[in-house]
Amino acid sequence: MSKKKHRRKVSKRGLPPGTLIYTGDRKEYPSLISSVWLDEQNYEERETYLPEWRSRAGGLFWVDIRGLTDTALIEQIGSDFQVHPLALEDILNTHQRAKLDEYENGLFFILHNLKLEQDTLDLSSEQIAIFFGKGFVLSFQEDPDDTFEAVRIRAREGIGRLRKKGSDYLAYALVDNIVDGYYIFLDEVESQVLDLETMMYTNGADPSCKARIFDLKRVVNQFRHRLLPLRDAVARFYRTESDWVDDSNRPYLRDVVDHVAQILDGVDNQRDILDSMEALYHAEAANRLNDVMRVLTVISTIFIPLTFVAGIYGMNFDHIPELHYRYGYFATLGAMFLLSLGMLYYFKRKHWF
Amino acid sequence: MSKKKHRRKVSKRGLPPGTLIYTGDRKEYPSLISSVWLDEQNYEERETYLPEWRSRAGGLFWVDIRGLTDTALIEQIGSDFQVHPLALEDILNTHQRAKLDEYENGLFFILHNLKLEQDTLDLSSEQIAIFFGKGFVLSFQEDPDDTFEAVRIRAREGIGRLRKKGSDYLAYALVDNIVDGYYIFLDEVESQVLDLETMMYTNGADPSCKARIFDLKRVVNQFRHRLLPLRDAVARFYRTESDWVDDSNRPYLRDVVDHVAQILDGVDNQRDILDSMEALYHAEAANRLNDVMRVLTVISTIFIPLTFVAGIYGMNFDHIPELHYRYGYFATLGAMFLLSLGMLYYFKRKHWF
Amino acid sequence: MSKKKHRRKVSKRGLPPGTLIYTGDRKEYPSLISSVWLDEQNYEERETYLPEWRSRAGGLFWVDIRGLTDTALIEQIGSDFQVHPLALEDILNTHQRAKLDEYENGLFFILHNLKLEQDTLDLSSEQIAIFFGKGFVLSFQEDPDDTFEAVRIRAREGIGRLRKKGSDYLAYALVDNIVDGYYIFLDEVESQVLDLETMMYTNGADPSCKARIFDLKRVVNQFRHRLLPLRDAVARFYRTESDWVDDSNRPYLRDVVDHVAQILDGVDNQRDILDSMEALYHAEAANRLNDVMRVLTVISTIFIPLTFVAGIYGMNFDHIPELHYRYGYFATLGAMFLLSLGMLYYFKRKHWF
Amino acid sequence: MSKKKHRRKVSKRGLPPGTLIYTGDRKEYPSLISSVWLDEQNYEERETYLPEWRSRAGGLFWVDIRGLTDTALIEQIGSDFQVHPLALEDILNTHQRAKLDEYENGLFFILHNLKLEQDTLDLSSEQIAIFFGKGFVLSFQEDPDDTFEAVRIRAREGIGRLRKKGSDYLAYALVDNIVDGYYIFLDEVESQVLDLETMMYTNGADPSCKARIFDLKRVVNQFRHRLLPLRDAVARFYRTESDWVDDSNRPYLRDVVDHVAQILDGVDNQRDILDSMEALYHAEAANRLNDVMRVLTVISTIFIPLTFVAGIYGMNFDHIPELHYRYGYFATLGAMFLLSLGMLYYFKRKHWF
Amino acid sequence: MSKKKHRRKVSKRGLPPGTLIYTGDRKEYPSLISSVWLDEQNYEERETYLPEWRSRAGGLFWVDIRGLTDTALIEQIGSDFQVHPLALEDILNTHQRAKLDEYENGLFFILHNLKLEQDTLDLSSEQIAIFFGKGFVLSFQEDPDDTFEAVRIRAREGIGRLRKKGSDYLAYALVDNIVDGYYIFLDEVESQVLDLETMMYTNGADPSCKARIFDLKRVVNQFRHRLLPLRDAVARFYRTESDWVDDSNRPYLRDVVDHVAQILDGVDNQRDILDSMEALYHAEAANRLNDVMRVLTVISTIFIPLTFVAGIYGMNFDHIPELHYRYGYFATLGAMFLLSLGMLYYFKRKHWF
Repeated sequence: MSKKKHRRKVSKRGLPPGTLIYTGDRKEYPSLISSVWLDEQNYEERETYLPEWRSRAGGLFWVDIRGLTDTALIEQIGSDFQVHPLALEDILNTHQRAKLDEYENGLFFILHNLKLEQDTLDLSSEQIAIFFGKGFVLSFQEDPDDTFEAVRIRAREGIGRLRKKGSDYLAYALVDNIVDGYYIFLDEVESQVLDLETMMYTNGADPSCKARIFDLKRVVNQFRHRLLPLRDAVARFYRTESDWVDDSNRPYLRDVVDHVAQILDGVDNQRDILDSMEALYHAEAANRLNDVMRVLTVISTIFIPLTFVAGIYGMNFDHIPELHYRYGYFATLGAMFLLSLGMLYYFKRKHWF
Repeated sequence: MSKKKHRRKVSKRGLPPGTLIYTGDRKEYPSLISSVWLDEQNYEERETYLPEWRSRAGGLFWVDIRGLTDTALIEQIGSDFQVHPLALEDILNTHQRAKLDEYENGLFFILHNLKLEQDTLDLSSEQIAIFFGKGFVLSFQEDPDDTFEAVRIRAREGIGRLRKKGSDYLAYALVDNIVDGYYIFLDEVESQVLDLETMMYTNGADPSCKARIFDLKRVVNQFRHRLLPLRDAVARFYRTESDWVDDSNRPYLRDVVDHVAQILDGVDNQRDILDSMEALYHAEAANRLNDVMRVLTVISTIFIPLTFVAGIYGMNFDHIPELHYRYGYFATLGAMFLLSLGMLYYFKRKHWF
Repeated sequence: MSKKKHRRKVSKRGLPPGTLIYTGDRKEYPSLISSVWLDEQNYEERETYLPEWRSRAGGLFWVDIRGLTDTALIEQIGSDFQVHPLALEDILNTHQRAKLDEYENGLFFILHNLKLEQDTLDLSSEQIAIFFGKGFVLSFQEDPDDTFEAVRIRAREGIGRLRKKGSDYLAYALVDNIVDGYYIFLDEVESQVLDLETMMYTNGADPSCKARIFDLKRVVNQFRHRLLPLRDAVARFYRTESDWVDDSNRPYLRDVVDHVAQILDGVDNQRDILDSMEALYHAEAANRLNDVMRVLTVISTIFIPLTFVAGIYGMNFDHIPELHYRYGYFATLGAMFLLSLGMLYYFKRKHWF
Repeated sequence: MSKKKHRRKVSKRGLPPGTLIYTGDRKEYPSLISSVWLDEQNYEERETYLPEWRSRAGGLFWVDIRGLTDTALIEQIGSDFQVHPLALEDILNTHQRAKLDEYENGLFFILHNLKLEQDTLDLSSEQIAIFFGKGFVLSFQEDPDDTFEAVRIRAREGIGRLRKKGSDYLAYALVDNIVDGYYIFLDEVESQVLDLETMMYTNGADPSCKARIFDLKRVVNQFRHRLLPLRDAVARFYRTESDWVDDSNRPYLRDVVDHVAQILDGVDNQRDILDSMEALYHAEAANRLNDVMRVLTVISTIFIPLTFVAGIYGMNFDHIPELHYRYGYFATLGAMFLLSLGMLYYFKRKHWF
Repeated sequence: MSKKKHRRKVSKRGLPPGTLIYTGDRKEYPSLISSVWLDEQNYEERETYLPEWRSRAGGLFWVDIRGLTDTALIEQIGSDFQVHPLALEDILNTHQRAKLDEYENGLFFILHNLKLEQDTLDLSSEQIAIFFGKGFVLSFQEDPDDTFEAVRIRAREGIGRLRKKGSDYLAYALVDNIVDGYYIFLDEVESQVLDLETMMYTNGADPSCKARIFDLKRVVNQFRHRLLPLRDAVARFYRTESDWVDDSNRPYLRDVVDHVAQILDGVDNQRDILDSMEALYHAEAANRLNDVMRVLTVISTIFIPLTFVAGIYGMNFDHIPELHYRYGYFATLGAMFLLSLGMLYYFKRKHWF
C-alpha cells in the first residue's frame, strides 16, 4: 500500500453561497493570463488581461487564466463577462465533479486534466473550467503550465478550422484536447498492466505483484470515477439546445462523446484484466502454499512409520527373537527402505506431491 | 462490533392516519421557538410565536421550532399556515426518509442533520422539516441546539442575498446549510480512514483494525442510505414546477444537487478504500498464518528424519556394526547435522520459509 | 436449517382461464361476511350479505369476506358488482404477487398480510384482495380473523375522515392498515437481529448463531421479494388517472408510497447488518480454528526437537562420552528445558500463539 | 457434472436472408397438420391443410402444424397467408429467443415449451411459433406431440369464451397454455429443491448434494434466461396497439404478464434457496474437515509430549536416578496418564475438539 | 496465462481533429479496391475506382476498399462522396467501438469482424466501416481478404433481393453478413467450452484446465464488450428516421437486432457455464487437497500412539515387569496391531478418510 496524500476540503459551512475562496493545493503559483483575439484573418495574443477587446466586433475573444490564486482578477473577469456567482465559486473550488451547466449568457464546463504519477501510481488531477458564450471563451487552469498550448499554436498558425468557427468550436477544441490526454493516461495504465503481466508470467506470484495490482486497481477506479460524470457532461454538451452551440458542430461533439465512451471501455477492460490477475495471483499463491504443505506432510508421513519400526526394536523386552538374528539389523533397514519406497511410489502415483 | 442503540418504531397500526405523536428519542427537551420577520430593509426576531405577523405585507415570515415535544403548538402552527395533516404527522414522526412533497400551498422538505459520533463510530441523526409557501418558511428541528444559527446571522446582518429574495431562497439556504454539514461528516470519515490506513501500514494487520474497518463500513453505508433519497428530493426541488420556486433561483438549487452528488462520490470512494483495506487485511492475516504454519512445519520436517536416525541406532539388535565403530557416534551426529543443513538449504532455496 | 412447509401450486393447465378454484391452504375455514353501510350520518353493519343495499343512494357500501372457501358466494358477489372474471380468479388463487389492476368499473388491489412466525422464523402470508368502484368497496381476506377490525371501529365511531370520504379513501385506509402491519414485522426482525447481535457479542461465534443468521436472511429476503411488487402497485395507486380516485386523496396515497419505501429501506438495512454479521461470524470461526491449530502446532514443534535429543542419548553406540558424565542426565534435562523456554519465548515474541 | 448434449447452430453465413432450412434436432418426425374452422355455432376439424377455408366469411381459421420437417408445406402456408419471409425463417430456425414481432398483416409470437428432464436435470425446449391476423391463427410446434390439445378440446366442446372471440383470443389461449406449463416446470424444480433440502438435512453435506445443487442451479438459470425475453414479448403483446388485438381482451393479456412475472419471482426464489444451500454445503463441508483435522491434531499433540517423556527414560546415561527407583516405571506411567488427562481436560474446556 | 499482443494507441493529442492517419496494425497491405454498379438488370464490377459511375442514374454504386494504407485514395473518395471529415478519421482510426452515426448525406456504420484465434484463444478484430446514402454504398475493410465475397456473389448472380432494393438493403446485407460471422465465433467458443467440460469430466481438475478457463473467460468477456455497443448501433439502425432507410426494410433490420440479442444471450450463457466450471474446478482442487491432507494426517495419527507405546518399552527402568514376560514382545505387537485396527475402523466409520 503506497502512502497517499490526503485532501482535506475547506469547510465553508455558514458562509453565504457564492463566497470566493480557492480551495486547491497549488497556492504558491501566481496567476498567469493570456488574452487572445482571433478571426479568420487576424490573431493577436498578449500576456495580460485586456477587457477593452470585448467591444471589438466580429471575432472571438479568448481569455486563458493559469493558476487560481489571484481571486481579485478572477472576480473582475467574472463581473466583466457576467459569469454567474456560483460558476465563479466552482472555478475556485477545485474539488468539483465534471459537469456542464447552462446559464443564460453561456455554457460552463468543468473537467479535469488527469495524469498518472508513474512512481506512486497515484492520480494527479488539475481542474479546468471553461465558460463560453457569444464571442468569448474563458478558460481557467489550476496549474500554471499550459495545457492548451497545442490549441493556441493551431489558432496562431491557422491550422484546422479554429479561426473559421465560433466560441463553441474553440470550447470543443479545448475539451477535446483534455480528453485526448486521457488516451495517454489509459496507455500508461495499459503498459503498467502489461509489465506486471510479464513480471507475473516470468517470476510467478510474489507479494510485490500483489501491492502493484492493488495500486493499479485503485488508480483505475479513481480514473473511472472521474470519467462517469464527464461522460454525462459531454453528452449534455452534445445534446444541448443552447443558442451558443451551432448545429454544424454537433458531429465534433458527438466525436468527443464517442472518445469518452471508448476510454471508459478501455478502463473497464483494464479493470477486468486486473481482476483476473488478482484472482490468478491468489490462486497461484494458494497453490504454492498447498504444494509446500503437501511435500512437508508427505515427508513426515513417510518417516513416522519408519520411526515406529525403529522404536519397536528399541524396546527392552527380554525376548525379542529378531534382535538376535544375524542379519536382523540389515533386514530391518532393508524393509524400512522398501516401505519408504512403496509409500513414495504410492503417493507419487496418487499425485500427492 | 460496537454496541448499538436500537431504535424501536412506535406502532401506530389502527390509529387513523394523521394522528400527531412525536416518535423520536429527544422527549426531554422543551420546544424553543423563534419568529423572524425580514424584508430588504428590516429584520425583527422574537423568541415567541407571533401569528399576527402573518398578515404583514411584502416581507418574509420565518418560524423556527427547535424540539418537537410541544405537539399542541405544532398543531396550532399547522392550522394557522394550513399545513396538510400528513405533513404535520411527518414532522413529528422522525424516522422519515429525506423527501420533497408538493402541496397546494407550499413545498415540504424533510432532511437530516447527520453527525459522526467519533468514539462509537455511530451515525447520529436529527430530522429537519421545512415547509415554505408564499411569504413564509416554517422550519422544525428535532434538537433544541440551533442548526440554522449561521443562516440567522446572515439574515440579521444582511450578508448575501437572503433579505433580497423570497421564501424559496431562504428554504434553499437552510437546505444548503445542512448539506454543507455533510462535507464535515465526510471529512471526518476520510480522516478516520486515513488514520486507519496509517495504522495498518505501520502495525500490520491486527484484529483491532478489522473491527475498525467493520465499524467504518457500517457508518459509511448508513450515511449512503441517507443520501440516496436526499439526492432524489433535492433533484425534485431543482426541477419542480411549483409556483413557490422562482426560476432565478434554479442555479442555486442545481448547486445543491451538485453538492449532494459530489458527497455521494466521496462516500463511494471511501467505501472502495475500505473494501480494499478489508481485502488487504484478510490477505495479510492469511499470509501471516501461512508463514507461521510453514515455519513450524519446516521445523517438524527437519527433526522427524533426524529422530528416525536416532531411533535406528537405539535399536537393540545384537549385530549393528556401526555401534562399535570408534567414532560412530560423532559420525552420526555429523551426518545428522549435514542432513539438517541440506534440508534447510533446500527449503530455503525453494522459498518454503 | 429449519424445516419448511412446501407450497404446491394447483396446476390449472388446460382449464379455460377464469375457472374459480380456491388454491390456498386454509380450506377448513367457513367464509364469514360483513356488510357495512356508511355515510356521514349513518353506520349500519350486518353479519350477512345484503345485495339490496347496492341500490341505496349517496353513501358507501363495504362488503368484507373473511375465508375464501365459499366459492359460490364469492361468485355471486362478483356478478352482482360486475367484478371481471380474471379478478375473481385472482381473489381465489392466493399465490399472487401484489398488484393493482384497473378495470372499467373499479380498481383491483392485491396485497398480503405478512407475519413473522417467531419460533421457526418463517414468513406467514395471508392474501388480501380489495376491489372498489363507485360507492362500494369489496374486501376479501384469506383468513377468518379480522385484519380490518381497527378500520371498522374507526368507521363505526366516526373517528377520522372515513365517513366523509368516498370508496377510494376506505380502500386507502385498508391498504394503509396492512402496510402499517409491515412496521411490526420489520420491528420484530430488528429485535431478532439485535438479540442475535448481543448473543454473538457475548458468546462469540457458535454454530447456532450461523443457523439463526441463515434463517433471518431467508425471511428478510422473502419479505423483500413481497415488498418489491407492492411498491409498484402502491405507486400505481398514487399515480392512477382512474375516475375512482379523487385528487384530494393523493397526499394520503403518496404517504403510503413513502411508507413502503421506508420499510424497504429498513429491510435493506437489516440485510446489510445480517451480511456483515455473517462475514464477522465466518471471520471469527476461521480465527478460532487458526488459533487452535497454531497452538497445537506450536506444542508439537517444541516437543519434536526435544524428543530428537532424547533419541540421541538413547542410541546404543559403544562410545558416547556424554553418557558417562556424572551429571550428563541432568545437564541434558536442563538443556532441554532451556531449549523449550527459548522456543516458547521466540514464538511468543513473534506472536505465533 | 452431468453430460450434456451440445447444440451446434447451422451456420448460414453467406446465404441470403430468408432461406428456409429447419435447424432443429427433431428431423426424423413428419409434419402433422390440423385445420380447424370455428365460429359461435360451428366447429370443423380436419387432419389436412384446407386452404379453401380461408375464403369462408365470419369465423376463425386455425391451422396447426406439428413437426417442422415439411419445409415445402410451411412455405406454401406462408405464401397463402402472406407470412413475411423473415417470420417463416424464424419458424424453422428453432434457436430463437422468445419475441413478438408486429407485421402489417398480423402478429408473430415465438415462445418455448419447456420441460425438466427429471433424470439429467436438463431443460428440454420445443419452439412454438404463432402467427395470427384477421380471421386466422397459424401455430407451428417443433414436436409432433400436441401441446395444444387442451385448447382444441375447449374449442371443440365450446367451453369458455374461445368460440365467441377472435383470433387474438385464440392466440392468447395458446400462449396462456404454454405459460401454464411453466408452473409445472417450476413445481418440479421446487420439489427437487425440497428433496435436496431434506436430503441435506438428514445426511449432511455429501458430495452428491453438491453435484445436485450445481445441476439445479444450471437448469434454473437456463429457465430464467428463457423467461426474460418472454416477459418482454408478453408485455408487448399486452401493450401493442395493433389492429389485431381487441381492447376487451387486454385483461387476459395482462393476466399472462402477471403469470410470467410470478413465475420469474418463483424462479428467483429457488435461485436464492439454491445459493444459500450451496453456501450451507460449503460451510458444512469446511466445518467437517476442520473438525477432523482438529481431532487428529489434538491426538498428536497429546502423544508427542508423552513420547518425549518415554524418550527421556530411554536414554542410556550412566546416572539416571529415577531408573533405579522401585516404582519409577509405574510412577512414570501414572504421570503420563495424568498429563494426558490434563491436556484432554484443557483442550475440552477450550472447546478445541 | 497466454502471452498477448499489446495494442498501443497512436497519441494524436495536439493535432487538429480530422487529421487522417491509419492507426491499425496492418500497415504492410496495399489497398485493394472494387467498384460495383448494379440495378435490377445490370451488374458491372471493376478492380479500380471509377468516380464517373457516380453520375449514372437509377442504380446503386458500391465502392469496396480492402486495406487502409492508401490514405490519399480514401481522402479522395471521401471528398467525392462528401463523407464528413470525422467519419473519414474514424475509418482510419481502427480502435473505434461499434456505432451508427447519422450525417446529412448518409449513415455511417462502424462494426468489427471478430475471429477466435484457436491456438492462443485471442480475439482478432478487423474494423469494417460502411457509409451509405442515396444511390451509393462505401465499405472499408481493414484487411485485404474479402469479407463481403458472399454478398458480392449474390449481387452478381442476382440471388435474393439485393438487386431490387436500394443502398440501405445492401448496407443491411453487409452488416448481416458480419453478424452471421459472430455465430461462428460463438460456435467455436461453445465447442471449446464443451471440450474443456469433457476434459474436466474425465481428467478431473488439473491446472491446465484452470488456465484454459481463464483464457476462455477473457475472450468471452472481450467478445461481449464488443457486442454491447454493436447492440446499440444496430438498434439505432432499426429505429432511425433517416431518409436513407426505407420502411419496407425495417423487418430485416429488426432481424439483425434479434440476432445480436441472441448472440449476446449465447455469450452470457457461456459465461455462466465458465463461471460454474471455475467454481467446480476450485471446489475439486480444494477437495483433493483436503483428501490428501486428511489421509496423511490419519496415517500420522495412527502411528504416533504406537510409537509412544514402543517408547514406553524402550525405557531403561530397572523394574518394568512386562519386559520380562515370556510373550511380552508379541503381546505388545498384537496390542499395537489391534489399536491401529481400532483407530482405522473408528476413522473409517466417521468417514475421516
